[in-house]
Amino acid sequence: MSEIKLQPVAVPAGFRFACAMAGIKVSGRTDMAFAEAPDGATAAALFTRNRVVAAPLEVGRANLKRTRGSVRAVIVNSGNANCATGEPGKRACEQVLAAASQLLAVPEQEIFPSSTGIIGVPLPAEKLIAALPQFLSDRAADVTALGRFAAAIMTTDTRPKLACSSFEYAGKTVTITGVAKGSGMIHPNLATMLVYLFTDVEALPAELRRMLVSACNGSFNCIAVDNDTSTNDTVLLLASGKSGVKLRQAVRLFATALNLVCGSLAEQIVADGEGATHMLRLRVEAARSRPEARTVANAIARSMLVKTALAGADPNWGRILCAVGYSGIVLDPARVDIFIGEQQVCRGGMAHPFDEQAAHQHLAQPECAIRVSLGRGRASIDFLTSDLTAEYVRINADYST
Amino acid sequence: MSEIKLQPVAVPAGFRFACAMAGIKVSGRTDMAFAEAPDGATAAALFTRNRVVAAPLEVGRANLKRTRGSVRAVIVNSGNANCATGEPGKRACEQVLAAASQLLAVPEQEIFPSSTGIIGVPLPAEKLIAALPQFLSDRAADVTALGRFAAAIMTTDTRPKLACSSFEYAGKTVTITGVAKGSGMIHPNLATMLVYLFTDVEALPAELRRMLVSACNGSFNCIAVDNDTSTNDTVLLLASGKSGVKLRQAVRLFATALNLVCGSLAEQIVADGEGATHMLRLRVEAARSRPEARTVANAIARSMLVKTALAGADPNWGRILCAVGYSGIVLDPARVDIFIGEQQVCRGGMAHPFDEQAAHQHLAQPECAIRVSLGRGRASIDFLTSDLTAEYVRINADYST
Repeated sequence: MSEIKLQPVAVPAGFRFACAMAGIKVSGRTDMAFAEAPDGATAAALFTRNRVVAAPLEVGRANLKRTRGSVRAVIVNSGNANCATGEPGKRACEQVLAAASQLLAVPEQEIFPSSTGIIGVPLPAEKLIAALPQFLSDRAADVTALGRFAAAIMTTDTRPKLACSSFEYAGKTVTITGVAKGSGMIHPNLATMLVYLFTDVEALPAELRRMLVSACNGSFNCIAVDNDTSTNDTVLLLASGKSGVKLRQAVRLFATALNLVCGSLAEQIVADGEGATHMLRLRVEAARSRPEARTVANAIARSMLVKTALAGADPNWGRILCAVGYSGIVLDPARVDIFIGEQQVCRGGMAHPFDEQAAHQHLAQPECAIRVSLGRGRASIDFLTSDLTAEYVRINADYST
Repeated sequence: MSEIKLQPVAVPAGFRFACAMAGIKVSGRTDMAFAEAPDGATAAALFTRNRVVAAPLEVGRANLKRTRGSVRAVIVNSGNANCATGEPGKRACEQVLAAASQLLAVPEQEIFPSSTGIIGVPLPAEKLIAALPQFLSDRAADVTALGRFAAAIMTTDTRPKLACSSFEYAGKTVTITGVAKGSGMIHPNLATMLVYLFTDVEALPAELRRMLVSACNGSFNCIAVDNDTSTNDTVLLLASGKSGVKLRQAVRLFATALNLVCGSLAEQIVADGEGATHMLRLRVEAARSRPEARTVANAIARSMLVKTALAGADPNWGRILCAVGYSGIVLDPARVDIFIGEQQVCRGGMAHPFDEQAAHQHLAQPECAIRVSLGRGRASIDFLTSDLTAEYVRINADYST
């Protein structure tokens, strides 16, 4: 068995893609994306834990329930989140699905809707419906069409995000390809983030769900850009079965490949964080449990003082120790060690002599690493976060975003 | 009885003040402050809930315990937090107190130490000790000396913070005067904040403590600048007894005056928030309980997306609703109303037509108001927060702050 790696993006068997311009984005860019499994797919999805939930999530969740995890098409719009739009928002979403159902000759419940963009503005269903026919003429099962899908779901993203991995089983190839958007409102559970994972493995929805929960815990739930849990976060995994390989025959191989794809997409999201200039790989170790490690990582990753220090490549470890202290874990600061890159900067909760210039240079790189050891146990977590820059403020402070 | 109000700053009977230049701040500004109750004072203090606690807090807490709430002098240094400095940090603090004890002929335990500034750098005790004699020659019981005390405890503050109130009881005047510092690391429980409250009422330490807890809950625990709970937060209340009025004779009057002073200092801290251009008065109402109202206010006040929208005076109520949704309260978004100034912008969780230009103009003022009604009960909270600006990033991203 050869090692499973990330690889150039390929389209798994059994899917095709298209995009369209509905005229929702004022920029005039494509703002509708379409994915189709012409012969159907099994599905599992995870949604935001925000109590304020956008209309398409309610509709999509209900559809998945009704069909017991069967999806034929995915329709995404960007530029409008269809959130805080009440009953009219839900009706607008259903109108789009009804029109697509007729056009595609597919039951309405087998279409999965997503929206991303501004909150609280009515969704112009008529614009989306008018753009649907473009899908029919353009849909294709190639990488170009997939790339267009990835571009059409972008909002403040500066680049499309794709990742792919595959493995061989009994002479057959299973491919997993993921597409994501998200660069602000990024925070665990989940980020403001849409993620679509396509694979040609054959699997039951319950099997997919188990895989998805585990992959998300180690990827999308370990990233933070700006601490806001969005109203529209969705991760959808679709399996066409076209590879002829059953998931249960190759659970480990599949898990490895799925984790790689999700890990890569999570990294791409953080690296493209709004205004971000550095990505921090934060490791919290020697914790008593993984939830404890997560709590501490979360406090450090969301600290505005840590994030601004990172923007200035300032090896200000006192701010990290301070965040550890208020994270909520009852710990003994005298057992905390902190490392910037390879250098120890804090030992037993106190300053440890280090080369400041070298630490500054390490933090000034596009990717840098900080390790915090709590001296309490053996659990650890790897977390990704970005810096807080004046550019982040500029992006988000503009009147009428 | 006349109404109790804030008034021009006066020095309560029984206190004198001084400042000194120890050479800790590179700026060359005064960096040591001294307050003295020559005939003694009763005391109560509240400290940070951060697990990482600076050395002076440990020493001060122990001293208050040993003396059962008796204080003769307060010595504060700015420019160095004496935090994450381990046993040597504690010894440095004790050396300063021992030297002051000799000089003032006051028991060491009756001196209360505070430090604020950078974390993790050893405190240069010898510099502080060398500066102590300046106190002896300069101490005075006038407003000028108090103003110098207020200036010497500043770090990134752009202005000193003082507030005063008084009341008459049985022909005698009781005065309460407070001095505060803090403009970054400001968050409930407590802020990075030092607050010293001086009064000439006569009170037992336990009585003072009750008053102080209640006053802090409605003031310093309702403000947020950047969500970081510092390692050095301290609020100290000292009572000289010189007015001849016993606290228990005038509990309500005293509570009213103390709340006014603390409220004013909390406002001054937020208005001087690092890089802040607007102060937001956030009211969360119709909550089921005050802790619930606090949880929601906290989520809104710490949202980077709300704070950047505020910087741009952007009436982006969707971000507020989003923060309500992820605050952790299990609520029905369809009952949430949001008001910007006098205008309703969200009704029942949905957009409510409003004059965007007027809302923008309201938010563009130095002080603005947002009201969120949860539709669940009768509890409410008033919270203060500031906007997140590019200037905040600049202040905190500078290498080697």
